[in-house]
Amino acid sequence: MSQSLEETSLSKVKRGPNRASYDKDLAFSIIDAALMCHVGQTKQGQVFVTPTSHWREGDYFYWHAHSKARNVKGPIDEPEKVCINVSLLDGLVLARSAMHHSVNYRSVTLFGVPELIDDKDEKVRQFKLFLDKVSPGRWDTLRPVNDQEIKATGVVRIKIDEASVKFRAEPPIDDPADNNWPVWAGVVPLKREWGTIEQDPIQTAHYSEPKAPDAF
Amino acid sequence: MSQSLEETSLSKVKRGPNRASYDKDLAFSIIDAALMCHVGQTKQGQVFVTPTSHWREGDYFYWHAHSKARNVKGPIDEPEKVCINVSLLDGLVLARSAMHHSVNYRSVTLFGVPELIDDKDEKVRQFKLFLDKVSPGRWDTLRPVNDQEIKATGVVRIKIDEASVKFRAEPPIDDPADNNWPVWAGVVPLKREWGTIEQDPIQTAHYSEPKAPDAF
Repeated sequence: MSQSLEETSLSKVKRGPNRASYDKDLAFSIIDAALMCHVGQTKQGQVFVTPTSHWREGDYFYWHAHSKARNVKGPIDEPEKVCINVSLLDGLVLARSAMHHSVNYRSVTLFGVPELIDDKDEKVRQFKLFLDKVSPGRWDTLRPVNDQEIKATGVVRIKIDEASVKFRAEPPIDDPADNNWPVWAGVVPLKREWGTIEQDPIQTAHYSEPKAPDAF
Repeated sequence: MSQSLEETSLSKVKRGPNRASYDKDLAFSIIDAALMCHVGQTKQGQVFVTPTSHWREGDYFYWHAHSKARNVKGPIDEPEKVCINVSLLDGLVLARSAMHHSVNYRSVTLFGVPELIDDKDEKVRQFKLFLDKVSPGRWDTLRPVNDQEIKATGVVRIKIDEASVKFRAEPPIDDPADNNWPVWAGVVPLKREWGTIEQDPIQTAHYSEPKAPDAF
């Protein structure tokens, strides 16, 4: 049975609680299905939202950036509980009234004080986990990382506990009196797929094609 | 010639300034190409990031929510400059070293103190503009909005001026010494498209199929 996330004053879903879940495995599956997240933090009271890539190992949510970048260094220099959202748009929900139009989506919101990963070997292990998500099997084929690169890359993590899931995956729900309103109603699903690979124009040799990820 | 956005201490891009732009038309095109944005705000010092749908009219960026929802009412009750990010992931950039892996993307970051749209007629006009983005021509086919719905829906906007664009749209850029490293390098583009429409199961009549948007 899946464990539950912590439903705190921050993570408790206030709007549309019927679409909320605190199931940890569900949160993990959404985090793993997405390549990008949005990190929210403050600097001297001003909020900043930064898009970035993330990965997960067990109960921990990781991201990286230049070691001096705001979304890695900021919350370490001025410790604060950041807010991270991971969202995947799954479709348009077209109802009979404007009011009941919606989207189908999967979303996780996480809160936590970031922890900096300092240990060199651990950083490299995390780089590999990240690459394994982006293109499985690719790590061992790459030019190995060097000390300067390890130093220049900041890796932080938060524990996935104070968090919540929101999702919608169903047809429109109109006011019953509108159900016979003469307009098409239903869902227009959003499809994502990886397109034809575009080899670097400066590369003339032929190598095995890369594996694309299951995440988008 | 396109106007320029305001390059302030908030909106100036500090990391990767070579990928930054302050071209207003470019910002508009990215805002219009995306259905979803992430609104960052604070409540009693704690940052929150909320995904939502947005639309644009001229120089203004609009979003809506339940009139009591945090991302509409919060910045009105406690006025603050919110930060909004709109991002579209366009592809994976696979380099010869882990360090130079990246993504191709289009991203706009906006700052502004939200302004509440109170006038009833103006709110309805904005609802129509939003619907026109989501499914062109649909508005006039819907059951008209009523007073209760107008009241329950909060609409806010910020002016698109203190903002910046970041984007990447090119092959990997490796350290020159790595250019002959024997691994495939290039871009894996991400494709988005609208799938087969799924009519509401409770609807048995046949109506014209909806128009899908150009935004994703």
